Amino acid sequence: MSKPIIIDCDPGIDDAIALLLAIASDELDVKLITTCAGNQTMEKITTNALKLLSFIGEEKIEVAKGATRPLFKELCIADDIHGESGFGEVELGEPNCSVSDRSALEAMRDVILNSPEKVTIVAIGPLTNIAILVKSYPEIVNNIEELSIMGGACYGGNSTPTAEFNIFVDPDAAQIVFKSGIPITMFGLDVTHKAFLSNEDIERIRNTGSKIGVASASMLDFYASRLTRGIHMHDACAVAYLVDPSLFTIIPCNVEVETKGEFTNGQTVVDKNDRTNKPKNANVAFDVDRERFAEMLYQAIEKFN
Amino acid sequence: MSKPIIIDCDPGIDDAIALLLAIASDELDVKLITTCAGNQTMEKITTNALKLLSFIGEEKIEVAKGATRPLFKELCIADDIHGESGFGEVELGEPNCSVSDRSALEAMRDVILNSPEKVTIVAIGPLTNIAILVKSYPEIVNNIEELSIMGGACYGGNSTPTAEFNIFVDPDAAQIVFKSGIPITMFGLDVTHKAFLSNEDIERIRNTGSKIGVASASMLDFYASRLTRGIHMHDACAVAYLVDPSLFTIIPCNVEVETKGEFTNGQTVVDKNDRTNKPKNANVAFDVDRERFAEMLYQAIEKFN
Amino acid sequence: MSKPIIIDCDPGIDDAIALLLAIASDELDVKLITTCAGNQTMEKITTNALKLLSFIGEEKIEVAKGATRPLFKELCIADDIHGESGFGEVELGEPNCSVSDRSALEAMRDVILNSPEKVTIVAIGPLTNIAILVKSYPEIVNNIEELSIMGGACYGGNSTPTAEFNIFVDPDAAQIVFKSGIPITMFGLDVTHKAFLSNEDIERIRNTGSKIGVASASMLDFYASRLTRGIHMHDACAVAYLVDPSLFTIIPCNVEVETKGEFTNGQTVVDKNDRTNKPKNANVAFDVDRERFAEMLYQAIEKFN
Amino acid sequence: MSKPIIIDCDPGIDDAIALLLAIASDELDVKLITTCAGNQTMEKITTNALKLLSFIGEEKIEVAKGATRPLFKELCIADDIHGESGFGEVELGEPNCSVSDRSALEAMRDVILNSPEKVTIVAIGPLTNIAILVKSYPEIVNNIEELSIMGGACYGGNSTPTAEFNIFVDPDAAQIVFKSGIPITMFGLDVTHKAFLSNEDIERIRNTGSKIGVASASMLDFYASRLTRGIHMHDACAVAYLVDPSLFTIIPCNVEVETKGEFTNGQTVVDKNDRTNKPKNANVAFDVDRERFAEMLYQAIEKFN
Repeated sequence: MSKPIIIDCDPGIDDAIALLLAIASDELDVKLITTCAGNQTMEKITTNALKLLSFIGEEKIEVAKGATRPLFKELCIADDIHGESGFGEVELGEPNCSVSDRSALEAMRDVILNSPEKVTIVAIGPLTNIAILVKSYPEIVNNIEELSIMGGACYGGNSTPTAEFNIFVDPDAAQIVFKSGIPITMFGLDVTHKAFLSNEDIERIRNTGSKIGVASASMLDFYASRLTRGIHMHDACAVAYLVDPSLFTIIPCNVEVETKGEFTNGQTVVDKNDRTNKPKNANVAFDVDRERFAEMLYQAIEKFN
Repeated sequence: MSKPIIIDCDPGIDDAIALLLAIASDELDVKLITTCAGNQTMEKITTNALKLLSFIGEEKIEVAKGATRPLFKELCIADDIHGESGFGEVELGEPNCSVSDRSALEAMRDVILNSPEKVTIVAIGPLTNIAILVKSYPEIVNNIEELSIMGGACYGGNSTPTAEFNIFVDPDAAQIVFKSGIPITMFGLDVTHKAFLSNEDIERIRNTGSKIGVASASMLDFYASRLTRGIHMHDACAVAYLVDPSLFTIIPCNVEVETKGEFTNGQTVVDKNDRTNKPKNANVAFDVDRERFAEMLYQAIEKFN
Repeated sequence: MSKPIIIDCDPGIDDAIALLLAIASDELDVKLITTCAGNQTMEKITTNALKLLSFIGEEKIEVAKGATRPLFKELCIADDIHGESGFGEVELGEPNCSVSDRSALEAMRDVILNSPEKVTIVAIGPLTNIAILVKSYPEIVNNIEELSIMGGACYGGNSTPTAEFNIFVDPDAAQIVFKSGIPITMFGLDVTHKAFLSNEDIERIRNTGSKIGVASASMLDFYASRLTRGIHMHDACAVAYLVDPSLFTIIPCNVEVETKGEFTNGQTVVDKNDRTNKPKNANVAFDVDRERFAEMLYQAIEKFN
Repeated sequence: MSKPIIIDCDPGIDDAIALLLAIASDELDVKLITTCAGNQTMEKITTNALKLLSFIGEEKIEVAKGATRPLFKELCIADDIHGESGFGEVELGEPNCSVSDRSALEAMRDVILNSPEKVTIVAIGPLTNIAILVKSYPEIVNNIEELSIMGGACYGGNSTPTAEFNIFVDPDAAQIVFKSGIPITMFGLDVTHKAFLSNEDIERIRNTGSKIGVASASMLDFYASRLTRGIHMHDACAVAYLVDPSLFTIIPCNVEVETKGEFTNGQTVVDKNDRTNKPKNANVAFDVDRERFAEMLYQAIEKFN
């Protein structure tokens, strides 16, 4: 039986790949997509989600709008990486579906409360929506199976020397989520920097022959042109783990989010060597079987043929 | 026509007086009471609200439970002032009404959205519920007429040398609220320390002859025994202002809430002399006509005869 | 017998009045003047000290240069109040003495260690020099009789809503000093705002008939033109107290300096009502007999005839 | 010609090895040893320095006492690693020399100012003394050739998940030093964790046949018994680099010290990938030729035969 999931995202190029992987996977049943301002502004990322679903003929999946800005900080976006539209220069056409009448908060609550089994959340943008959910409906925590997060880093950030983008955008939300008691698996830069695609992988995707393969490869070309350190499939890790946990090497750790530092704001402090004796509130991924991971992405995209 | 209001509170002795004043006032129409852990724990303050309503025969007013703890900090309570029960040693009897099925968040949202006119909120506990409302339903801000807050201080606190209790309990929530754009009137210690009752005032209340007068006076006796600097009717100020704004001297100011200080956490930084040129996001009360204020409280309690 | 003192200052108009008061007072023996960047830059304030001493014929008093900038922060100056030169528009003529070969640190150390009795320090600029002294020669603390500080505030600042200028310039130095164990008397804005001169007081000073009276009055005219809330003789308070402590109402308090706040940096947190039970590390002045204080200043300046 | 150096240290077992290496090296001329509370308290580490010099017959080297505690924080020591005495359980006998009459501050100043060439400082304890030197004698910075520091980490700490011990003890001093403008080379955990001795290396040292070889090996045995992750010669790196810089791989970086974080205090934020475009204020070592490093230590200890 497939696992019911909600994907909270800010598409974004690697979000798109993550969404394709989730939708293609028999193991997962995407009940809801919620959006949270991050890689680009709310309007753009929500439109991107709708465009992607229309493009692949999955208009039935509900898309609900969430937080347009972080809890306390001003919004910062990543248009340098994801381009003006958020999807590089790829044109997927206009969406033929529209955004839900429900807010992300209400949609998440209803999906979770109406589900006969516990629901898993994949959070691959800033954690603003999840923090608001936790604070608005504290009792709902018990109905969440697991939270699979792309965010943070133990050893070095990408927004600052120590902070990863998704956490840096809304560190306060992240601290609420990491303290919520929800079972968390964290895919930070330590592992996502190992979860890259090679140029050969991208060519293979382009050559699946479908319009989806071609569009994906074009997005990845744009993404590759903006990155200097590898074509990292950050967000897809948080989905791939739900499909096949054996891909990843995972260590339970205490994780705190720094919200008061002068130079370290948004850093996830991962106590990998257990120096603090604090409770281990997250399973943190440190390694991935890159070959099998890349093969999983390829097969997911090929499925849309 | 009377003004529709929601009272967000943590009763608490001076909360009880504030509730009596609001319910007795023709100018105000109490649509909803929501509770927020503060003076005492959630269970105790919610029971106190129900007991008070039952005692005065106002069981029809909905009471909805809100946040059991602050956004980030651990809960600290004020049982030294309000006693083990939160109502001193006064016994009002068991409630004959029960708490709402709706959460404070949902009840506030529905009352506000269903109201033909904008709703005023009186917030006389920590601001956790209001912060969650603002973050969960950002667009609802436009349907709020005004937020009348008891909290903060320009010149000196009561929980720490610089922080007032309600703000100190949840400084992060307070910062969200003060930055929300809702029109705010703030009744901090600068004015509430001038809004005291004399022993004669309490005797007059006792002698109204009703059980409500006697119970109120007994609570106030307990409260007086715990306070060394005067019998301050903190919370009633935020209601009295809605009944008759002319009681107060008010100055528009920029107000920020310190959340990162080593010694100043929970301090409201009130820029009374406009040194920062920042937008004036709150009307701050600095003075009160004490005689008329005490008379207003007396007449409200007398009305229950 | 007169009390040996060191004056650590940043002249500055009210510093000049404080220096005149100290030099004129039989009760005090000014052994050394040290300078610390604050009201103006190091070069200007040191030149001002030399000019003033030359002008009044006290060239024998050693002037030693200290810190050109705060411990951690960038220097901010108060040229809006004290003018481009630091002495308003008054020209005292070129100095006929020169700055000491010793640094402020070495001069302070030597004066203190060579004194047969304990030495009192009057600190009326930022506390950078004193902090460095304390950290460089920790044992010297025992040879300091008292530190009379102009700085800080219990109720409201002048650089920010909560921080007074001298402490705001170098909060870290101030925190070192307040934690040093030296007996401290603090003259903050709470008292210095009550220690003002009236226009009549200034006229009386002008009419002492001496060039010093005229120059002082001219400086005070400039100063008055820049101030909107009164002609406060901040710095002179810290000297006047050493001449006649009976002028001031003083309360022992715990004082901490906020160095980590977002909105409260440089605030002195004065626990006047003893809410924290922390040790009382400073005697804090809250009131002054203004008439006698103004008379003391007048008589000091008249003495130079 | 040999390079004049001052060693600022807190011996400490690996400090002892660093001192032996420096004294044995023809390339270096140890002009002064200063002590700073860290691994153990001031009295113990200063006695350790004197004992070591007496043991090896180098009583002529001046040892001057410095800071007994950090600038702001309380002292924390590392007796878990270095034992009750600071030298494990090794007994070197009583010293036959005594501590200098001059303070560390005055001795450093005089050595630097009296040296015909610029002086190099090796700082292998907390940076308190160096920070006080910089603040007391700002102009002396120009007479310092280089500061070779053992401290900090780019990727993971040993006192906390992110902070290394020497910096964690006094983060404020470290921030002053890193901002001082002195040319800095930093040997943090990233490189010192690679600069370990094997058990074979220790046996070889023991078998040099001298009492110094035996004592060193005994200290290292104790040290090894307390460490779980390798016998790291942290402090010796900062000396070895001055003897032969070719041992190390070094990258110029911006380094900031976090002093305000909730979870990250004392972390050195090393911008290895230049994300901030801030000036590169330190040369940071990331790799070492371990074999040659171990050989250098062996030969240094053998020399004492």
